[in-house]
Amino acid sequence: MFNKVTIVGLGLLGGSFALSIKKLIPGVSITGVDISMPNATKALELGLANQIGEFEVSIKDADLIVIATPVDCIPNQVIQCLDQLKPGAIVCDLGSTKLNICEAVKHHPKRNQFIATHPIAGTENSGPEAAFASLLENKKIILCDIDLTESHLLNQFKNMLTQMKMQVEYMSSASHDKHIAYVSHLSHISSFGLGATVLDIEKNERNIFIMAGSGFASTVRLAKSSPDMWTPIFSQNRENISAALNQYIQNLTYFKSILDENNLEKIHQFMSETNDIRRVLDAPPSPKKD
Amino acid sequence: MFNKVTIVGLGLLGGSFALSIKKLIPGVSITGVDISMPNATKALELGLANQIGEFEVSIKDADLIVIATPVDCIPNQVIQCLDQLKPGAIVCDLGSTKLNICEAVKHHPKRNQFIATHPIAGTENSGPEAAFASLLENKKIILCDIDLTESHLLNQFKNMLTQMKMQVEYMSSASHDKHIAYVSHLSHISSFGLGATVLDIEKNERNIFIMAGSGFASTVRLAKSSPDMWTPIFSQNRENISAALNQYIQNLTYFKSILDENNLEKIHQFMSETNDIRRVLDAPPSPKKD
Repeated sequence: MFNKVTIVGLGLLGGSFALSIKKLIPGVSITGVDISMPNATKALELGLANQIGEFEVSIKDADLIVIATPVDCIPNQVIQCLDQLKPGAIVCDLGSTKLNICEAVKHHPKRNQFIATHPIAGTENSGPEAAFASLLENKKIILCDIDLTESHLLNQFKNMLTQMKMQVEYMSSASHDKHIAYVSHLSHISSFGLGATVLDIEKNERNIFIMAGSGFASTVRLAKSSPDMWTPIFSQNRENISAALNQYIQNLTYFKSILDENNLEKIHQFMSETNDIRRVLDAPPSPKKD
Repeated sequence: MFNKVTIVGLGLLGGSFALSIKKLIPGVSITGVDISMPNATKALELGLANQIGEFEVSIKDADLIVIATPVDCIPNQVIQCLDQLKPGAIVCDLGSTKLNICEAVKHHPKRNQFIATHPIAGTENSGPEAAFASLLENKKIILCDIDLTESHLLNQFKNMLTQMKMQVEYMSSASHDKHIAYVSHLSHISSFGLGATVLDIEKNERNIFIMAGSGFASTVRLAKSSPDMWTPIFSQNRENISAALNQYIQNLTYFKSILDENNLEKIHQFMSETNDIRRVLDAPPSPKKD
């Protein structure tokens, strides 16, 4: 088990990961690192870390380093960690894109101590106050390009995740980025687009939000998400996202055309076929792989 | 108060309205009407109505008739009800579009016994089993073109809604339809479009849904909605929806262009501005009007 853990980035995901580890490993010492001093202080106050440290100092002695910063910061931070990492220690990142980071570290002599990780968990909130211990429980967590990680380190890490009640899945970093463009990144853009459209009309039509119900709230919720976190995600995965967004715009344009024609049969058919999404959403969680 | 209430259409909304009325008015007699015999039987079994009746018979003696059928059925049903309605009785509909029905009944000699109503409440589920007593509590309910309703009937109805814990708002039927296109109908189309896009990619990329998290579930939830209910809504409000959808597609196309340019500054700005949606979603419920 890991006795000394360093968490870099004490936001929603890093903070929640810290709380899960504290719950799992009695006596673990967690060092928190955050570029923002108010965030670091807050995180200490909330018990997300036992102490706060500087990046360069806090990575040297750790058994496990978890990088939970915006995706454009991750590659350099992982490389710096690998440079300093002690034998038998692990560094993982929790970023929402995986190909870029895997490419950046692929020739590092300690590549086999790195695990590219993406927990499928989050909320529209950010910062240390948004963290909570159960965020990661019963959620999927994707480990990418695992053949490049030393197998007993991988097992050790995977066992910890399983004990944190996460469901571990494996995938190549390229497949990860392609798929996540559809089932996560595109959802965010569809929400941001909807929010922008409705805010725009509000300028001329005051009180429009009197009529906003739970359906609107649900579809637009992700438009609260942090631009600082999401701008680099969109940028790094822009080719996959652009393809997904193109398909989405085509589907909406098709729907607009059958609406303008008042083609009831085709409108009904489009919805009936899409109701198949119920199969996906109501599916029981997949069995653990081992 | 209303002693004899007839509910036409015993689905999610009609059924929930029935449960709210039963809770409010002890000894009320509720007659349920549904074109589907299995639905009617189920509704009786679930206690949504005290008895089941035929439409023509059940509307004659009622103090209040609530029409909760698909919007393409409503105009004729309201006219039939008005034809038979006893003096001092009320008919209301609960449809998601209002202009069409108000136009259809505007010359009826008993127009002043009709109230065009839209409760901003619902789930993605349908049918009598989906009904529950608290669906309407603390929700907005819009009454349209109220100057055409006899004022003491309007007051009687409004008092009942207030006692059912609903927040009553007033609006013209034309404004209603325009606004609801943005804050409800467009949300449904954005979800259906997203569902269609992701189901389509799944044909080539099995197991993509391993990665679907709560954000995806939230944005795509409305794509479970009933095509039988939503086809006539989209059709009736197609001009307003087409304008809203056009604006939405333009916003997404703009986002795609700044993404393809990798214009980080504009991507960040688009999201920052749209974060203003938090003001809307986190706003306290508006105070009651009286």
